[in-house]
Amino acid sequence: MAHIEQRISELGLELAEPTRPVANYLPAVRVGQLIYVSGHGPKPDPNGEFVGKVGSDIDVDTAYRAAGVTILSCLSTLRAEIGDLDKVEQVVKLLGMVNSAAGFNKQPQVINGASDRLVEIFGDRGRHARSAVGMAELPGDIAVEIELIVKVAD
Amino acid sequence: MAHIEQRISELGLELAEPTRPVANYLPAVRVGQLIYVSGHGPKPDPNGEFVGKVGSDIDVDTAYRAAGVTILSCLSTLRAEIGDLDKVEQVVKLLGMVNSAAGFNKQPQVINGASDRLVEIFGDRGRHARSAVGMAELPGDIAVEIELIVKVAD
Amino acid sequence: MAHIEQRISELGLELAEPTRPVANYLPAVRVGQLIYVSGHGPKPDPNGEFVGKVGSDIDVDTAYRAAGVTILSCLSTLRAEIGDLDKVEQVVKLLGMVNSAAGFNKQPQVINGASDRLVEIFGDRGRHARSAVGMAELPGDIAVEIELIVKVAD
Repeated sequence: MAHIEQRISELGLELAEPTRPVANYLPAVRVGQLIYVSGHGPKPDPNGEFVGKVGSDIDVDTAYRAAGVTILSCLSTLRAEIGDLDKVEQVVKLLGMVNSAAGFNKQPQVINGASDRLVEIFGDRGRHARSAVGMAELPGDIAVEIELIVKVAD
Repeated sequence: MAHIEQRISELGLELAEPTRPVANYLPAVRVGQLIYVSGHGPKPDPNGEFVGKVGSDIDVDTAYRAAGVTILSCLSTLRAEIGDLDKVEQVVKLLGMVNSAAGFNKQPQVINGASDRLVEIFGDRGRHARSAVGMAELPGDIAVEIELIVKVAD
Repeated sequence: MAHIEQRISELGLELAEPTRPVANYLPAVRVGQLIYVSGHGPKPDPNGEFVGKVGSDIDVDTAYRAAGVTILSCLSTLRAEIGDLDKVEQVVKLLGMVNSAAGFNKQPQVINGASDRLVEIFGDRGRHARSAVGMAELPGDIAVEIELIVKVAD
């Protein structure tokens, strides 16, 4: 049991404590076998390197790493919701939103940092439908925000 | 019965007639117990105060109110779809899109106007997963657009 | 059988070969009776007319056509996923993202190109909930990106 968390450790990664929303919404909501995970940003970010517009303040490599950190933040919330990440049957849908400088059009390369990490952790169960798009602004000027829909065991 | 509509009245609010799309789409679609509510704007807006970019044309307080009006517009559509808002079991997911001036990063404070209203009206059933993000432009230059997924009784 | 594909032919349209993602995600994911179709762009675009910002580089009419081409691209993916488009019971939800020049606010007119085509092809089953919104940037500077949720027969 806890194979997925072991896998996360083997990859040299760790799940931080989930951030709690400070407003009237929830980090995740379950309906049947689907978990809707709220939009998450790249936290923790102790050095503030994941703040700013991708393509001007931040380069693609840094934003790729920000997307990977953001997925861990989503998974931390998901674990708190379902108790055990081994219950994940399929990551269904990912919306990857990139805080984009004018003329920056490599959103897919950035969001690959999220997709790659999901597949590293979950294998084929981590493959998902996705959109990777360019936002005008994001909360707190974070470089990346990601929301997920995940199917879990009954 | 009609507890939720009574609650809306007690809050001093009212549901306008739902706006009908003028194109080949629907205000809401039901699949099983889920209702997908199309993106709505802050209507009615008789004084035109909810038009423009938040952070330049419009301040956060006005945009917060716009988000509250937008939720009422969504609920008006939802009532037309399901007949009775007491059938709402859970607001599942909210996507809050803010027409954002350059450098405006307080999208969550704006969309709190929607989340707060949902919880005022529905209590815990109104709590939802959400993303609050910054758009480059919105139709007709509205300040806020919101789409919802709501779970209703069988 | 194959009524829908016949209808597509009668409309003078055709489905190209589906594009395969070149990264760790899938063109579509099925959960129960719902198919989540990843964000698609206006491909094929042999003359490069569907690249750039709508409202400056590209006019509304061209972008309307881009949205129609994008839907065909989504349907090509959907056919590869479910085998036969006659299985479509309802197009549930469409997110239409328009690469928007500053001050461009006619996103609905653009995305009508997608909604109109869905209804031409599927009739009432093609009517859907939707949002039509303005993005700062899109991958490869495409004019339009669309993602879909479609309900199919068991």
